[in-house]
Amino acid sequence: MIREWEEACGDCYGPGQMKGVPDNLTARERMVRAASSQPVDGPPVWIMRQAGRYLPEYHEIRQLGTFMETCRHPDRAAEITCQPIRRFGMDAAVIFSDILVPAEAMGMDVSFEEGVGPKVGPALRSRADVDRLHAFDPEESTGFLGDAIRKVRAELGEDRAIIGFCGAPFTTASYMIEGGSSRNFEHTKAMLHGSPDSFRELLERIVDALVPYLGMQVESGADVLQIFDSWGGTLSAATYRETLLAPMERLICAAKALEVPVILCVNGGGHMLELLADLGPDCISIDWRVDPDDARARVGHRVALQGNLDPSALLASADTVSRLTNETLDRFGPEPGHVFNLGGSVLPKTPVECVQAVVETVQARRGTP
Amino acid sequence: MIREWEEACGDCYGPGQMKGVPDNLTARERMVRAASSQPVDGPPVWIMRQAGRYLPEYHEIRQLGTFMETCRHPDRAAEITCQPIRRFGMDAAVIFSDILVPAEAMGMDVSFEEGVGPKVGPALRSRADVDRLHAFDPEESTGFLGDAIRKVRAELGEDRAIIGFCGAPFTTASYMIEGGSSRNFEHTKAMLHGSPDSFRELLERIVDALVPYLGMQVESGADVLQIFDSWGGTLSAATYRETLLAPMERLICAAKALEVPVILCVNGGGHMLELLADLGPDCISIDWRVDPDDARARVGHRVALQGNLDPSALLASADTVSRLTNETLDRFGPEPGHVFNLGGSVLPKTPVECVQAVVETVQARRGTP
Repeated sequence: MIREWEEACGDCYGPGQMKGVPDNLTARERMVRAASSQPVDGPPVWIMRQAGRYLPEYHEIRQLGTFMETCRHPDRAAEITCQPIRRFGMDAAVIFSDILVPAEAMGMDVSFEEGVGPKVGPALRSRADVDRLHAFDPEESTGFLGDAIRKVRAELGEDRAIIGFCGAPFTTASYMIEGGSSRNFEHTKAMLHGSPDSFRELLERIVDALVPYLGMQVESGADVLQIFDSWGGTLSAATYRETLLAPMERLICAAKALEVPVILCVNGGGHMLELLADLGPDCISIDWRVDPDDARARVGHRVALQGNLDPSALLASADTVSRLTNETLDRFGPEPGHVFNLGGSVLPKTPVECVQAVVETVQARRGTP
Repeated sequence: MIREWEEACGDCYGPGQMKGVPDNLTARERMVRAASSQPVDGPPVWIMRQAGRYLPEYHEIRQLGTFMETCRHPDRAAEITCQPIRRFGMDAAVIFSDILVPAEAMGMDVSFEEGVGPKVGPALRSRADVDRLHAFDPEESTGFLGDAIRKVRAELGEDRAIIGFCGAPFTTASYMIEGGSSRNFEHTKAMLHGSPDSFRELLERIVDALVPYLGMQVESGADVLQIFDSWGGTLSAATYRETLLAPMERLICAAKALEVPVILCVNGGGHMLELLADLGPDCISIDWRVDPDDARARVGHRVALQGNLDPSALLASADTVSRLTNETLDRFGPEPGHVFNLGGSVLPKTPVECVQAVVETVQARRGTP
């Protein structure tokens, strides 16, 4: 991580106000630099699930096939990825895909039921089940994702960042073990506590699969990688450390070796920010329950921070959203190492004008579109 | 709070090992003293939702009527309350009831659909809706709960603690506004951010109703009160402070004036333990994601701590559960001010022998049944 910010003196963002900021940063440079804690002219902004359910033009495309078919269709996935950029001009486009794409490529059946969530089968409950998973060649089995990334680059050009992603090992494992979403992760925790060797083997196989999968995304044009640990935050820090430290370090280390910034997003992981920072990502995503000041005090400047406006706040009026966006910017302050985002995924019922209010407010504060 | 523990010298629990511990404590005394941070011969143990779904004898009684009918039936509610005490001998019996009983008494329709959760209607969405709620006399409208508590006392005698409870204002309000359970509390947060005056009025009306409702429970024989904030942990500390500080302080202050220890349980509230302790309860419940050492360092000795074994851990074998129970006891250490509990409600699929393993392990460590 470059520590140029330590020499930066600006007490507010804006062109020319922070040392070490190149002139005329592109959105792509802004995103990559901010996620690496390098000085920028102001925080970049993107929104988790910005390519998705709250946009009417998304639903039009989704009518053409199932969710997984849409993920596997490079034209549709690229179109959905570009939709929010055309409307709002976020600094980064996050590729439309799903964290269960690798699970499918490893031999699981994956489908989505409207209003219910993913179905993953047959659920893994034993060592023999785990041993039935297989490795895959990412170009061969998931080349559609590389194609989609290349199409997004062709449409958006060189000046916009593209974010690739994967699910974290625990999250991927929990879907495989539970057979879908879960409230209490009963089977997952039963395996974790009761058959730790099987659980460890499963995590290792998942990491083995994810490393080349992320590599393929970067080769195809991803500038930043995000690792989504949707459910890791349901574990105690002690359990996370005992169970996930080794596979997470291996995954993050391999992702960083691709020479792109790596963002780690652990939903509800506010109780273990120190541990998450120790895993070595360039940036960690914090939710709305974490005070940015407190997060910075706990992790220092060894990682950038992404976040953290409450997605539910976007259900209020656009004026309220602008006010809350400004308050969030104030809480993070002018230091480098902030990527503006929500503290979780944008909710399906979010009014389009409230997403617009977020993006415009961040752009207005930094003085550049 | 009595600070006798400061003079206590025992480095492990056990009869006669801690100064200021009366001889032959009853379970009732142990529970009341521990929740008040007074020295005891070892932590008392009870389990959230111990009277409920994991017990076959519970399901037999539940077949006789709907969930709310069962709550309103003093004989059945008392029987369900006593079932786990007969089987396992926990130190405290938590009265079988529901946090939505006061919502019903205020004029809402409340029902439970199997596998779905509560339905509360008609959902409150405006100030006019809020104004339709009415106060209630707890003896008149919810006297069945007082009757159930008296029946439990008659069955269990004087030596066992009885825990009464209510939902916290935010949790109660969110059910009223959403019309049931919610994942993202969209309508609740829309009112909180968009119509703060209506939201504040709703919280005040709820507190007005809860204070005499808790008073009735203590008059009927409750020795301890727990305030369940099932959903307050979804808020940031800043939002909780701005929105809930005043109503929570008023509720807790009124509950403490009843001269029983007050336990505050905010699910997922680990990010704001300091704030929760500042609200003035005698004890706060922590979930499995909070390290007891860290919790103690953050809140000092001004509150007792309740918790915090992961409910999912009880899905492993009884041997594993005993080991994890011992590890939890080790983490809390020998200081007074620990009430053993899970970090959340016992899960429906929990094997009966795993609940037994928890209770027996705690009893064996302290050397008394």
